[in-house]
Amino acid sequence: MAQAIRLARRAWGQTHPNPMVGALIVENGEVVAAGWHRAAGQPHAEIEALTALGRAPATDATLYVTLEPCSTCGRTGACTQAIIDAGIRRVVVGAVDPNPAHAGRGLAMLSQAGIEVTQGVLEDACTDLNLIFNHWITAATPLLAAKLAMTLDGKFAAASGHSQWVTGQAARRDVMHWRRYFPAIAVGANTVLQDDPSLTSRMDGEVFCPQRFVFDRLLKTLHSGPLPKLYADEFKAKTVILCLETADPQRKAAALKAGVQIWELPADRGHLDWAAFRRRCAEEAICGVYIEAGPALATEVIESGKVDYLFIYQAPKFMADAAARGIGSDRRTATMADAFQLGNVHHSILAEDVLIRGKLLK
Amino acid sequence: MAQAIRLARRAWGQTHPNPMVGALIVENGEVVAAGWHRAAGQPHAEIEALTALGRAPATDATLYVTLEPCSTCGRTGACTQAIIDAGIRRVVVGAVDPNPAHAGRGLAMLSQAGIEVTQGVLEDACTDLNLIFNHWITAATPLLAAKLAMTLDGKFAAASGHSQWVTGQAARRDVMHWRRYFPAIAVGANTVLQDDPSLTSRMDGEVFCPQRFVFDRLLKTLHSGPLPKLYADEFKAKTVILCLETADPQRKAAALKAGVQIWELPADRGHLDWAAFRRRCAEEAICGVYIEAGPALATEVIESGKVDYLFIYQAPKFMADAAARGIGSDRRTATMADAFQLGNVHHSILAEDVLIRGKLLK
Repeated sequence: MAQAIRLARRAWGQTHPNPMVGALIVENGEVVAAGWHRAAGQPHAEIEALTALGRAPATDATLYVTLEPCSTCGRTGACTQAIIDAGIRRVVVGAVDPNPAHAGRGLAMLSQAGIEVTQGVLEDACTDLNLIFNHWITAATPLLAAKLAMTLDGKFAAASGHSQWVTGQAARRDVMHWRRYFPAIAVGANTVLQDDPSLTSRMDGEVFCPQRFVFDRLLKTLHSGPLPKLYADEFKAKTVILCLETADPQRKAAALKAGVQIWELPADRGHLDWAAFRRRCAEEAICGVYIEAGPALATEVIESGKVDYLFIYQAPKFMADAAARGIGSDRRTATMADAFQLGNVHHSILAEDVLIRGKLLK
Repeated sequence: MAQAIRLARRAWGQTHPNPMVGALIVENGEVVAAGWHRAAGQPHAEIEALTALGRAPATDATLYVTLEPCSTCGRTGACTQAIIDAGIRRVVVGAVDPNPAHAGRGLAMLSQAGIEVTQGVLEDACTDLNLIFNHWITAATPLLAAKLAMTLDGKFAAASGHSQWVTGQAARRDVMHWRRYFPAIAVGANTVLQDDPSLTSRMDGEVFCPQRFVFDRLLKTLHSGPLPKLYADEFKAKTVILCLETADPQRKAAALKAGVQIWELPADRGHLDWAAFRRRCAEEAICGVYIEAGPALATEVIESGKVDYLFIYQAPKFMADAAARGIGSDRRTATMADAFQLGNVHHSILAEDVLIRGKLLK
């Protein structure tokens, strides 16, 4: 199953809105065929593996697959039927289909056909592979995730705004990996003005540009001076500025003239209406957004519970300075039980730093 | 070597001021003898293994040992000579002797005797085994370590002082493990008054009581009411209160009457003089102190660099409340490079929590 997970990950970030899935066929203790789902519209992993086998499986053949085979007839036909038709006698499954309407149905169909089914092997890892898909398919809204890099005392930057770097190289490389996982990235206007980022994922010599969002309710990033990279580089058609409907019409025009898209959102107590943002993403089939939050945006999204998931990179250092910038502090949190809690937490050790990620429980 | 490390750990916390060491003899790919250092004054691990073998080693025999064999004649005779005399032809070593005066000497003696020596195998793990010994032998002062349990935003407790619990069970069990590692534990007076802890290590049904220190410069824990557990339980002879020379003589008398020891320390700007505390520990051969710090003590020891090592248990939650108690914040930390930094960091994942530990670099 660990090998099937590695196969699934070959399509890292390339299967949206579908899940990543890997499959292996083992005969007499040896892997004789392998497959993975490459992209939406392409064959499912099980079909890839059966096709790669190219013959009838041996009587002792076992199919390992990271996700429960689909039981409904989508663009590519139901995998359960293909497995039954192929004559596979044993199936080992990682995660159950996260869709409550389908969960267990594929397994039941296989069992009913007399196939020996084992489920839950490396289940947590198989489920974790598809954070975005699992959320999208169950909540019908994009997975909004915020990334924060902070010190042990929860600071993102010195009082001056100085923040390069909180974490070390391994953690910063890991960010590139998650930028490649999500179909969209978002930053606040302050980050654009201060850091002028390109928000591409640069890994193994390949440059990938996801959908790029800028939260800029008053279009202050279009105020004057040269255009930020996001509005001028070769990927500018992938940039969308999120502003209020009431933002300055001249600046809206300037954005459009630069070749950048704008989504005009209603206001929610002066801020952008996140519910409207979520709906618009859903309409456009954007199933996940990775928000690289500075102090202001992080405070807003955490304290208001606007995001679903947090990626916290924690560096082994202390600022011990009240004026340093961190998570906002306007709440009154009477007991430990009242703290914002992460659920289904995963840790990754990245040299001296650690990534702590999980669902923001509300 | 991993097996030798496990052997060494059988004497977890029982070898002070000596290191934990494990040794194995392997012949023809099989472990034929094993030994570990059980306590100061007892035979070294290599001698235990050679004794367990009870015969001349085979010509292909290899000795694996987690720490460079000693080259000087202590209470138990030099291990290098014993290895040479036994006729071992190959030695694999984890960590080099941390004492700069001895480092490499044992290896050189073995090599000169024609023994094939390999060093640095699982070196980090072998070195990490002996945090206290390594510090004691090189700095000639106890390893003062502070333990903190905090949220992702660096808070130990709500504004009310409520702090049960920051971390989960796995992290709290891990604390018991480290309490057993250190020869002494320390708390502040506020912790005694609020929590009335016993500071014993309770593991596997065994109760172990280390030396117990209370930082209480004015002896406020002896003010009135029933005595705290530390001054009244079956282990009270292992409790030492650290107070100022100028503390109330009547309270000093009350402590002594209760059967509790007092160390009177000079003042350093109104606080206890930590340099004097260190010296006194060194005189009493207390080579390591595990400080379970509340907010006030933690702030003092971190901001003033009074401790050598930090154990940070971090729970996946946020208080987001400025009034919640955390590391003090009176410093001005202009850039990330000016933050307090941990060195030689180790992480342990403990269910939902993570332990981040390392040297406090000054």
